[in-house]
Amino acid sequence: MKSKKVIIIGAGLAGSLLSTYMAKRGIETEVYEARGDMRKEKMSAGRSINLALSNRGIRALKEVDMHEYMLKEAVPMYGRLIHSIEGETKMLPYSGREGEYINSVSRGGLNIALIDEADKYPESTFHFNQKCLEFDCTTGEVLLENTETGETRSVSGSTVIATDGAGSAVRKAMFSSRCVSRFNFQQKFLEHGYKEISIPPKSEFVGELPKLPEKAQGEFLLEKNVLHIWARHQFMMIALPNFDGSFTCTLFLAFEGENGFESLKDKESLMKFFKTNFADAIPLMPDLVEEFFTNPTGNLGTIKCYPWHVGGKSLLLGDSAHAIVPFYGQGMNASFEDCRVFNEILDKHGTDWEKVFEEYSKQRKRNTDAIADLALENFYEMRDAVADPVFVKKRELEMKLEQTFPDYFSKYSLVTFRDEIPYYDAQKRGNSQNDVLMNICENVDDVSEIDLNEVVKQVKTIF
Amino acid sequence: MKSKKVIIIGAGLAGSLLSTYMAKRGIETEVYEARGDMRKEKMSAGRSINLALSNRGIRALKEVDMHEYMLKEAVPMYGRLIHSIEGETKMLPYSGREGEYINSVSRGGLNIALIDEADKYPESTFHFNQKCLEFDCTTGEVLLENTETGETRSVSGSTVIATDGAGSAVRKAMFSSRCVSRFNFQQKFLEHGYKEISIPPKSEFVGELPKLPEKAQGEFLLEKNVLHIWARHQFMMIALPNFDGSFTCTLFLAFEGENGFESLKDKESLMKFFKTNFADAIPLMPDLVEEFFTNPTGNLGTIKCYPWHVGGKSLLLGDSAHAIVPFYGQGMNASFEDCRVFNEILDKHGTDWEKVFEEYSKQRKRNTDAIADLALENFYEMRDAVADPVFVKKRELEMKLEQTFPDYFSKYSLVTFRDEIPYYDAQKRGNSQNDVLMNICENVDDVSEIDLNEVVKQVKTIF
Repeated sequence: MKSKKVIIIGAGLAGSLLSTYMAKRGIETEVYEARGDMRKEKMSAGRSINLALSNRGIRALKEVDMHEYMLKEAVPMYGRLIHSIEGETKMLPYSGREGEYINSVSRGGLNIALIDEADKYPESTFHFNQKCLEFDCTTGEVLLENTETGETRSVSGSTVIATDGAGSAVRKAMFSSRCVSRFNFQQKFLEHGYKEISIPPKSEFVGELPKLPEKAQGEFLLEKNVLHIWARHQFMMIALPNFDGSFTCTLFLAFEGENGFESLKDKESLMKFFKTNFADAIPLMPDLVEEFFTNPTGNLGTIKCYPWHVGGKSLLLGDSAHAIVPFYGQGMNASFEDCRVFNEILDKHGTDWEKVFEEYSKQRKRNTDAIADLALENFYEMRDAVADPVFVKKRELEMKLEQTFPDYFSKYSLVTFRDEIPYYDAQKRGNSQNDVLMNICENVDDVSEIDLNEVVKQVKTIF
Repeated sequence: MKSKKVIIIGAGLAGSLLSTYMAKRGIETEVYEARGDMRKEKMSAGRSINLALSNRGIRALKEVDMHEYMLKEAVPMYGRLIHSIEGETKMLPYSGREGEYINSVSRGGLNIALIDEADKYPESTFHFNQKCLEFDCTTGEVLLENTETGETRSVSGSTVIATDGAGSAVRKAMFSSRCVSRFNFQQKFLEHGYKEISIPPKSEFVGELPKLPEKAQGEFLLEKNVLHIWARHQFMMIALPNFDGSFTCTLFLAFEGENGFESLKDKESLMKFFKTNFADAIPLMPDLVEEFFTNPTGNLGTIKCYPWHVGGKSLLLGDSAHAIVPFYGQGMNASFEDCRVFNEILDKHGTDWEKVFEEYSKQRKRNTDAIADLALENFYEMRDAVADPVFVKKRELEMKLEQTFPDYFSKYSLVTFRDEIPYYDAQKRGNSQNDVLMNICENVDDVSEIDLNEVVKQVKTIF
């Protein structure tokens, strides 16, 4: 089947949003998704995982008029709530300013809404259970397998955009060098993996309710509007609130060694580990043992590659081009920003795909590299630094600066809230600022000793 | 065919040396090589390319009693001879000390000698025209294709060691994650490629001999015992002497842009480029135009990966584990050092392959990472820095230091001549020293102003 339509591989978050962007410009797309239609089938992957939606993502949704609807089902998180080993908590706000918060949203719910939205346009057509097996970059043909019948067929269009995630089949074709003679590629895994454990909503809690934290409210067994962090240096746990009152906790442990997944072999070792490290969470996790030994252990990896396109024949967009670790809460936001930037470039070059892909790649690559590196750095920050007194002072200082000077933005704010600043610039400026502030905080006992005007003056000399 | 023998994939430099090392311990190896027997067939790859053999490589050859024989056919190079754009030359010795030089050897000649040596032992068996198509890491079986008959067969042994170079088939199997669940992998290409051009020996020169440089001697049309460099910032050419009096010149240009390969489309643009940049070399290259447009343009890439082994079933060694760019002249030396270190570990663990592979990988990885990074840095040094006055002063200072203090070693010396210092340590110490010396040289007009004792004192504080 040869058509003038654009072929999109993957109806995940990036692919479905991209299809809407294209439809609004009158560009027809055929979207092929390997899994079934998640609007009809309960997908395990769509249920438990939540994501942090913040300004860059919201800005892209705004352009296709979807932000209000999306935010209705989101739970705002105003900061990190640090759980100490003794069970005490300390709030580290994300920003001193009103309206600057991130949003916990359900991946499944958001994906369904994005597909529904695209589906409203006659220009968008979705095909489910269609797995991309191969991409031939000389002909531009995509080989698809119907996962229900096993039948295969080839399709082609005016171009192919691969939004098929970290394991992209189109990228694999580029890797094999039939398409690209010098394909730069990197995949790097953390020594840590992750496992999800749930905290149910109050009304679904089976058994006697434990004593709840003071700030727990309504259906939520922990404080609702925060991202909970149990930072323990070599490992950590986080919890994000879900709209239904539950929390999804994610445990990040090394695979090997002491306190690693392999050391937690049975109920005894698991409970001992939790009692030592996350004692306050145990009463809220009735299914801890079962979930720990049933739920899969996920890998955490970064993928970088370049080039992202084969002439005007194909383009990698979203995770297929730049999979990142989740520690800045920016994976989805980066992919939505991909769509927004891509759309801007369509304004300039129309459907001259080679030009579009080239300019998009050049503009975008250093920014997605930057967020990949920021996300890795934030892993170490979340794991170690939030339990480090200098870092805690630095966050306090940043907060005071942000509340005192409306034009001062911390590194976190630059990345998360200042969607008009590209990631690359946010990283450069943020890291320089950070060095200055950490330096200052190393030399004071208390943040109140610091002359804020002096700090801002110092920071302003670096950019 | 199931045997207790060790299977080696690839009879290149690393594979054949490894086979000899094993044979000397009484370990039987079956070596499978995709190409034909280079002792019988003229192989294009084996003829023109020469390599720099230096202390690390020589040390490994010494352990199997091959160093004397090898060095008989080598051409010693005592330093870099820099050719300015005006045709003037300046010598930058590699070391101030006697006996510290590198050796230009023929890849083909060395490889044949290594195969011949291994072949003397009944423990070593070579099989040519046997291409590895697949490796099954659950069974340890290797699928081989006879490239002459097209027949395939499976072989297995007590373990498989892959010395099959940058495109290793065993590594590809590990990449596909059937073998290794978190395989870290990186391939990164320079924007530069390379092309070889030859300078013939005097007796084979056709036509009238041009006026030769004063120091040209015997069959050599350029000064014999140096590595010639025409450094031109964004690109460069080098020339290494061959035993027969010829030189192999390698031109390193960007693929794209001004002064890149793509800009040299025809005889006119090529000759204009050479006249502007390498005027002194033109008269010595009677086949310049033909060779330029006939010889292939090679890629320059770095490959890093980890882990290197699948349990005790297989190990990557040499370029299959760590392909590097050629700019430190250490690719072959690193692979020979691999063999030497591997042999040391056999002393400790015998043929308990899993233990051997684990310890070998752990000990070796950071060292091969270091030489990969050093080789990249040296690309920029050779291209830019040898034409930079501060760098030239720094080399002068280093030379004086090396001649004055027998225990002072420059970064280059640490990497190239101090084979008892692992690459990782050489890199760390070398870079720190380098920073100190560059700093000093930035602030003086002439090296004679510098107090050498003061410099050595300063350098000694850093390690």
